Amino acid sequence: MKNVTLIGDVTIYDNVTIGAGSVIYGPAILGQPPRGKEAGELALTIGVDAVIRPFTTIYAGNVIGDCFQTGQGTSIREDNTIGNHVSVGTHAILEYENRIGDHSRIHSGCFLEMVTLGRYVFVGPHTVFTDDPHPMNCPKWKECGGGAIVEDLVKIGANCTFLPTVKIGRGALIGAGSVIVSDIPEQMVAAGNPARVIKPVKELSCRIGAYERVYSWPPYEDDNS
Amino acid sequence: MKNVTLIGDVTIYDNVTIGAGSVIYGPAILGQPPRGKEAGELALTIGVDAVIRPFTTIYAGNVIGDCFQTGQGTSIREDNTIGNHVSVGTHAILEYENRIGDHSRIHSGCFLEMVTLGRYVFVGPHTVFTDDPHPMNCPKWKECGGGAIVEDLVKIGANCTFLPTVKIGRGALIGAGSVIVSDIPEQMVAAGNPARVIKPVKELSCRIGAYERVYSWPPYEDDNS
Amino acid sequence: MKNVTLIGDVTIYDNVTIGAGSVIYGPAILGQPPRGKEAGELALTIGVDAVIRPFTTIYAGNVIGDCFQTGQGTSIREDNTIGNHVSVGTHAILEYENRIGDHSRIHSGCFLEMVTLGRYVFVGPHTVFTDDPHPMNCPKWKECGGGAIVEDLVKIGANCTFLPTVKIGRGALIGAGSVIVSDIPEQMVAAGNPARVIKPVKELSCRIGAYERVYSWPPYEDDNS
Repeated sequence: MKNVTLIGDVTIYDNVTIGAGSVIYGPAILGQPPRGKEAGELALTIGVDAVIRPFTTIYAGNVIGDCFQTGQGTSIREDNTIGNHVSVGTHAILEYENRIGDHSRIHSGCFLEMVTLGRYVFVGPHTVFTDDPHPMNCPKWKECGGGAIVEDLVKIGANCTFLPTVKIGRGALIGAGSVIVSDIPEQMVAAGNPARVIKPVKELSCRIGAYERVYSWPPYEDDNS
Repeated sequence: MKNVTLIGDVTIYDNVTIGAGSVIYGPAILGQPPRGKEAGELALTIGVDAVIRPFTTIYAGNVIGDCFQTGQGTSIREDNTIGNHVSVGTHAILEYENRIGDHSRIHSGCFLEMVTLGRYVFVGPHTVFTDDPHPMNCPKWKECGGGAIVEDLVKIGANCTFLPTVKIGRGALIGAGSVIVSDIPEQMVAAGNPARVIKPVKELSCRIGAYERVYSWPPYEDDNS
Repeated sequence: MKNVTLIGDVTIYDNVTIGAGSVIYGPAILGQPPRGKEAGELALTIGVDAVIRPFTTIYAGNVIGDCFQTGQGTSIREDNTIGNHVSVGTHAILEYENRIGDHSRIHSGCFLEMVTLGRYVFVGPHTVFTDDPHPMNCPKWKECGGGAIVEDLVKIGANCTFLPTVKIGRGALIGAGSVIVSDIPEQMVAAGNPARVIKPVKELSCRIGAYERVYSWPPYEDDNS
């Protein structure tokens, strides 16, 4: 790999491609074979200008865009598709089959499986997404389960819990500590256990009076003008 | 150790036994000495056909059965007894004195201390068990505290919090995001903060109509027929 | 460094000072350069008698006192000030600008950013502190946000979530699984989502009748006599 900086003990399996300008801090493992696959059997592609921090594991079988960042101890299993300018925080876990849009930020300690995130989604630390309504071993779970669908510009507070298959509409805000058991409409604030819709995001006030309306800054301003 | 495959930098202290057919991905540390013990002073025994994934630490002073699996970054301290066919997920933490029955699955990011799990227990990601009602330093805490007792075939959703010494009856289902402050009877669904009993597991409906009754599949079918 | 024991593969960058009597278990990284800084540009100082466990990362730009302990996989970013006799548990994350008082214990899997903890604070496992009321990208967030302020002798249960800038008064007890959205007065018990004040700590009873009043033991006894 040209113009990739490896610092410390970085394990790179065969069939891994990393874009120019990337920095990988070891110990880290790129291209770990998933269960039932040989080393090098599946490809791992990471775009340019990645920063991979120590103790990260990324399995083979993933396609990751440019300007990707991980924290310490990030774990990414197979069959994920990750856009450009995405960060996945310290100890965050992507299990399989997540689709992560450009510019989305998955904070420290999150857990995602079969989740679809749009663009510019913020996921606060320790938020957990589930995908199976009736664990474990339901023979039909793939037909009834699956992770949440989160549209563009959604902001999710810390330590939330999402039940399978819920849909979070564009621009919604989910309060910290919420348990989301049903769909949340776009541009609404929801919070609580179970989460209930409280008011439109447009009616949130700025604590310090600096803005007439919150989220009037980029990238949210077109929806909140 | 015969027929054990070590991949990468695996540290194995003296007095560690690993069964045939096991695969250990480094960096990993097996037999880490607990506080106050010398390296090799306590034994660590792991059965046949284990898969230990990178960044795992397992302390000396544990007995672990056959077909054990860890995710990335699993941490297991001393004085645990773990049955056969158990998996402990990525970044999950077993502190000391847990008893884990056969076929139980502890998902990513869980935390257990002094917990007893029966057989075929499912613990969803990021679930936390506590063991001390009044931290810290109570001189009598060992007499009054201790972790939950979870009977066979219980299924626990993601990001739950268990107070010390609660008992969860056989086959119960705990909804995601619940805070469990009191005992839950067998075969009941409980959810919320604080968790309240909602209805029998038998009255849960299959979302897609594939089953007349959920949990009519193995290993649950005898309790739900 | 004199009288520092390194076990396994420990990476120590330039400009790192570790006190005598310390034990560091590798793999571990001490002095990791923060974004935009060169290796060795910022100092990391750790006092005497530290125990740093495997898979820990501590960035440059921190000042840490004596008798410091980490669990496995602890991650500590820059600009933290940590007192003496502090422990930070397995997979716990200190982001930047935390101030941690002497004798405080941050348990496994916690997440803190811009938090001030007093002395003898107990933070239960998986507790998360937030610092930005309206993520992400608010140009004024540093003027309106910031982490919680937690006074001396506070005890915080497992899996709690703190909203930005809340203040927790001396000696308060926060029940496990709580979401703290407003200030909690000193010496009070609060719990729930959202957390509400329930009663004075002095009115908590000992489950087993061993004490007339809980927290009558050190270091709490002067406040509860």
